[in-house]
Parts: sequence; structure tokens; C-alpha cells
Amino acid sequence: MPQDHAPSPPRGASPATLADPPEAAFDWIDEACAERHRAGLVRTLRPRPADSPLLDLASNDYLGLARHPEVTRGAAEAAHRWGAGATGSRLVTGSTELHARLERELAAFCGFEAALVLSSGYAANLAAVTALTAHGTLVVSDAGNHASLIDGCRLSRARTAVVPHAAPAAVRTALTGHDGRALVVTDAVFSVDGDAAPLPALAEVCRAHGAGLLVDDAHGLGVLGDGGRGALAAAGLAGRGDVVATVTLSKSLGSQGGAVLGPARVIEHLVNTARTFIFDTGLAPAAVGGALAALRLLAREPRRAARAREVGAELHRRLAAAGLAVVRPDAAVVSVRAPSPGQALRWAADCRRAGLAVGCFRPPSVPDGISRLRLTARADLTPAQLDTAVDVIVATAPTP
Amino acid sequence: MPQDHAPSPPRGASPATLADPPEAAFDWIDEACAERHRAGLVRTLRPRPADSPLLDLASNDYLGLARHPEVTRGAAEAAHRWGAGATGSRLVTGSTELHARLERELAAFCGFEAALVLSSGYAANLAAVTALTAHGTLVVSDAGNHASLIDGCRLSRARTAVVPHAAPAAVRTALTGHDGRALVVTDAVFSVDGDAAPLPALAEVCRAHGAGLLVDDAHGLGVLGDGGRGALAAAGLAGRGDVVATVTLSKSLGSQGGAVLGPARVIEHLVNTARTFIFDTGLAPAAVGGALAALRLLAREPRRAARAREVGAELHRRLAAAGLAVVRPDAAVVSVRAPSPGQALRWAADCRRAGLAVGCFRPPSVPDGISRLRLTARADLTPAQLDTAVDVIVATAPTP
Repeated sequence: MPQDHAPSPPRGASPATLADPPEAAFDWIDEACAERHRAGLVRTLRPRPADSPLLDLASNDYLGLARHPEVTRGAAEAAHRWGAGATGSRLVTGSTELHARLERELAAFCGFEAALVLSSGYAANLAAVTALTAHGTLVVSDAGNHASLIDGCRLSRARTAVVPHAAPAAVRTALTGHDGRALVVTDAVFSVDGDAAPLPALAEVCRAHGAGLLVDDAHGLGVLGDGGRGALAAAGLAGRGDVVATVTLSKSLGSQGGAVLGPARVIEHLVNTARTFIFDTGLAPAAVGGALAALRLLAREPRRAARAREVGAELHRRLAAAGLAVVRPDAAVVSVRAPSPGQALRWAADCRRAGLAVGCFRPPSVPDGISRLRLTARADLTPAQLDTAVDVIVATAPTP
Repeated sequence: MPQDHAPSPPRGASPATLADPPEAAFDWIDEACAERHRAGLVRTLRPRPADSPLLDLASNDYLGLARHPEVTRGAAEAAHRWGAGATGSRLVTGSTELHARLERELAAFCGFEAALVLSSGYAANLAAVTALTAHGTLVVSDAGNHASLIDGCRLSRARTAVVPHAAPAAVRTALTGHDGRALVVTDAVFSVDGDAAPLPALAEVCRAHGAGLLVDDAHGLGVLGDGGRGALAAAGLAGRGDVVATVTLSKSLGSQGGAVLGPARVIEHLVNTARTFIFDTGLAPAAVGGALAALRLLAREPRRAARAREVGAELHRRLAAAGLAVVRPDAAVVSVRAPSPGQALRWAADCRRAGLAVGCFRPPSVPDGISRLRLTARADLTPAQLDTAVDVIVATAPTP
């Protein structure tokens, strides 16, 4: 409700009219912009051409499927057959039989009872956190969780306890003494350092306390578990009644969109209550078709998942041997620490000049303030490309 | 931080372990489900085939472009040329020259300085509201606003004043006495009743108080304004320094995604600060290509926009003449009131049995609790289809 119901003064007499020049509402942005420049933290978009000459170790295309002809054909054919858009909310006209097929096959592949596809992984996380919590619920959230899980906590009516990164004992402490519903929320693989969450220990704590476990497997699907079935399958937790997973279709599956996987009753509850599902247009058929083609390809060629892990291990071994501060990867994200945001930026730029695209994570995208290069251990890198990548990263490394 | 730092009891002794059966964390959902059944408010997905025999007045495909061969070809060719997915965040590898092209052409078409494409209109609204507000900002939000604007308010650090629907005087009252930044947030066309916001009056109030104006033109783009340039262009507000618009690519443009339109400094600020932009995968090339093809088609065939409005007016005229409680549409959404949620549901089901798909809005999707049929005045409806639609809706109407 309005903060102040007193009658307003006549328009011309409003102090704001006299003091402020017209269209000044966003003048404050100039100061925010200047502040970013002073801090050296300006981000700019760099649109890429269709055929980039750069060797890509920056994307999340872990299995190299985004440009695979079967996957692009799956996307293109879906656009022709089903239309360029879903035309409405999934609850009105936006559910096609193609969506239903992807949901069935994705759930079966990952070992869950049911799945629900949304327009992004971000939307899937907002949906899962908000629909599985209520006023009075305690959400226990890992300090390193992805922005979308954090925003889910903020949107929910629940109370959130942020616990130290990857610390099941801290989760247990947070749950102890709480009376009522609780949900433990974690990334399966953390995107900044590429480390895995202690899922078996978390699941044990959850079960002991009657808490649900929600795991974002964005970086695990296609990489971890037998044939890339994901971190939950790898931990023997897929399909458990108290476990819900979210995945993205835009990383290993090379497409766009996200999904929630879990017990059928959880999925049905999301259909009925999750705002980012109900009030969003359904995922475009091309994205559904692309993801479905990638999923089938992965099921047929399970070696791709193991290969991504091998490339990750190989990158780690060789960069560590060269003396770089590289974190041992649990999946296909390899993180190399840089001494400062400025040096990280220069390092990434030097790599780019040498023909190599790498990710560069700086504050505020890194929870601990440490800047990094972020390398993607793509399953389809050739040995020669791997050599080039290692050579360039080592040759351009800042001197400590 | 954890709520309780007391040491936890040994695991086996935890009361939760003894009291709760395993995997009981989501048992509460069964009760929520039963409650929905008792209230007659269960929603189920009804996947449609590629070639539905139903006449569609339920989608948001206002111009009938989702299945237009130019648009589906634009989507399919983009998938082939640019890949099935964007492969990463727009700030890393997810910006293609195709994204940049769509942003330039969309901004120019709608009369704004710059545009930023996101993966959905929902994400665009979350981005705009959160990035344009801070602790201390007052957000003045129309009571009838879309869920995504409401969630944007909830996610923001600002204080939100919810004001009565379409009431500039209430907005002025809310702004009067507020010292500091303010943002007025409204749908341009409200999706439930199809009525338009009083944009000129709101803009006047905003300017008088130095407040920014954020308008969600999801249902105006392609329908309102000269050649479908949108509600802001129609009101002479496009391109103003204190006005920001959001649009969707999934309604009139028949594709998927959303965009924020505004001054270049606002867009640059979003690139640097909007979490649903930074931490999301870029929109898939197929969706970008589909939207771009639709935008060019609309620019070439501006009559489509006027035709959608004519169909809306015609539907209103004929349904009102038949004695139905139909709201005079300001765009291409025609709302017909139903006596109860149950009768709305039966009415929509009867229409479907007669070959006509209509939307059915029931609580909690309607802010005022009134259930409705929601009809889409598609520009590509033939006179015969229009006759059929009117005949079916009238013949199946519940007796008052």
C-alpha cells in the first residue's frame, strides 16, 4: 500500500519538479558507472562471429554438442515442425508433445520419476526453491551456491541459513533444533572452482533431520555419473523420495532451458504452484528439440562424459606441473587462480590474443573475492588443442 | 549464518530420525495436493500435437507468426549457423553477432536507444526491477502487475508500495513525500483483462517527482502503436531518458526470450549488474533468429498490428451484443467473465469439445479472484474462424 496517503501538492509546486531537471531519474547510473571504471570492473559484451577463430575453453559446452550436426538438426527440425515459439504458458498452449517427450526421457536418463522443463536453469532453480518452501520453512544454503539458488532463497517466504561451503557438519548444526519443514540447497558442482558438493554426507544429514535435499546439477549432467547421468546418479541419490535435482539444458546438452527432476508429486506441485513455470512462456520447440537430440546422442555415446573428466584431469595435471595455482577438478570446470582482478583480466586477454578463449571470473562473480581463469574441459578437444591450450595458458601466466 | 551453533546430538539419537520415516521430507505435498483437489483448482499439463485440430484463441501468438514459414526458417537457420545453444553467459561466450543484430533492430523499431536480450520476459523483468533499484529506492507497483514484475519487487532491496490498479493519482500520492530514488512499475497492457495502463498520466507523475518509469510491454509490442511499435511508442514515451520498457519475444514475435529497452546507460548498467542477465545462459540462437525474422516481417507488414486490434474490437462487439460480460480490449486480449471458477473451467472445456481453444484464468492467477475466459484476437484469424469462435463461445456460455 502507498506509504503516505496525505493529499499531494499541486503538480507545479512539487519540490521534485523544481529541483530536478526532466528525465533525471536515471542520472545516478552515471556515478555507478564511474565507480565501476575506477574499480576496473567494467563488463562489456563481445559478440562473437558464427565461426570464431578462437579455441573455446570458455563456454559451458562441456561435450561439444552445441554445434553437433545432430543437435542443431534436432533444433531446426523442431522449429519447422512445432513453430518458432511455444506460443503460451506451459499451462495454456505452451506444452507440446515434444516437451513431454523430453521430460520423460530426461527423467529416465537421470533416474528420477518425473521432470519438468522450464525456460532456463535460472527459472528452474527459482521454481524449485520457492515451490518447495513456505513461511516457516528453514532453507539451508551453501555459501558458494549459484546466483539463481540464492535468488530462489530471497524470493521464498522461508528463512535462509547460509552455511560455510561444502560443510555437512554446518548443515547438521543449522538443522538441529529447527522444528518444521526444512530444505537443504546446494550446487552439485560449484561453477567457480569446479569442486563437487559432499552429496552423500548431505543426504545423510537431510534424512536424519527429515529435510528435503535440492541439488543443482547444472555442471554435473553429462559429465558425472555413469554415461553422464549426473552427480545424483553418481552418488546413488537419483530417484530418492526426499531428493530433487535441477539441471540445465544449456551446458552439456548444448541447447537452452532448465529442468526440475524429482518425485512425481513434487513435479505436480511445481506445475500448480511455481510462478516461474506458470507465468512464463514455455521453452521454444527448437531448444526442446536440440536438448532431446543431445540427450539421445549422449545415451548412445556414453564415453563423452568420461572424456570430459579425463580432459579436466589432464588440464589440471599439466597446469599444476607448470606451477600454476589450479584446483583439482571434480567435473569439467578447471579453475586457475590469478593474483588480482587486473591480472586475471590481462591474462585472459593475452590468451585471447594467442587464439584461446578462457573464462575470467572476477568480483562480484566470485564469492571469495579471488579472481580466476575458468577453463572448460571440453570432451571434444583434440590432443593437439589440449597442447595448445596448456602452452598458451602457461606462457601468458602472470609472474607471481 | 546458521540459526543455532549449539553442538548437534549424536546422529542416531536425533528425534527426527526416530519420529520421521525415511524420505518423508515432501509428505506435506500430499496435503497441498488434496487441498487443490477439494478447491477444484488442479492444473494439469495437456501436451498438444504439432498439428492441433483446435482453433487457437488461447495462445499469445497475437500476429500468428510462431508458425509463419519466414519465422520458423529464421529459427532453423540460426540453429544451423550459430548452434543449438548460446554455450554460455552473454558476458562470456553467449553473445553472438546475431544477438547484437536483434538488439539493434529491436531498439530502433521500438524507438529506444538500446536493447538487451534475455532468455525470457520473466528474466527481463527481474533484471530491470532489481538493477534499477537499491536499498532506499521506493518502487510503486500497480496491483494488477504481472508475476514477474512482482517477483522483481520481491527480489529487489527496495521498498515496494502496491497501488490500486491503473490509478495515477495513487501513484502520485505514493511518491509524494518520498525522498530519494523511485521507480514506478506497470504493465502496459494487463494480461488478465486486456486493459491498458494510463501511460501518459503515469509518465507525467514520474517526471514531476523525478521517478523512473518501467513499463512491461509484453502484450503491446506488435499490437499497439504505429505498425506495432508498442505502447510506449503509441504514448510518445519511447526513447525518453526516464523511461525503460521490457518486452517479450514470445508473444507477437512468435519466438522466445525477453528484452529490456532504454537509454544506453541503463542497458550498460544492466549488463554490469543484473543477476538474471549475468548468471544465465544467453538466449539460444534459434530464438534470436526467429524473433529477428518476425521483427523484420512486422516492419514490412505493419498492417498486422492494426488487424489484431480490429479482431479484438470485433470479438468484443459481438460477444457483448450476445449479452456476455466482456471487457472492451485495449489491445488483442479479450476477457470474458465467468460466474465461478468451476463454470469458467466447464465453459473452456465445452469450447474445446467444440473445437475452440480458449484461455481460462482462475484463482490464484487472477488478482481479483474473478474467473475468466481469455481470448486472443489473433491478427491472422479469417472471418469464418471469427464467426466460429463467436458462435462457440456464445453457445457454450453458462446461463447466468
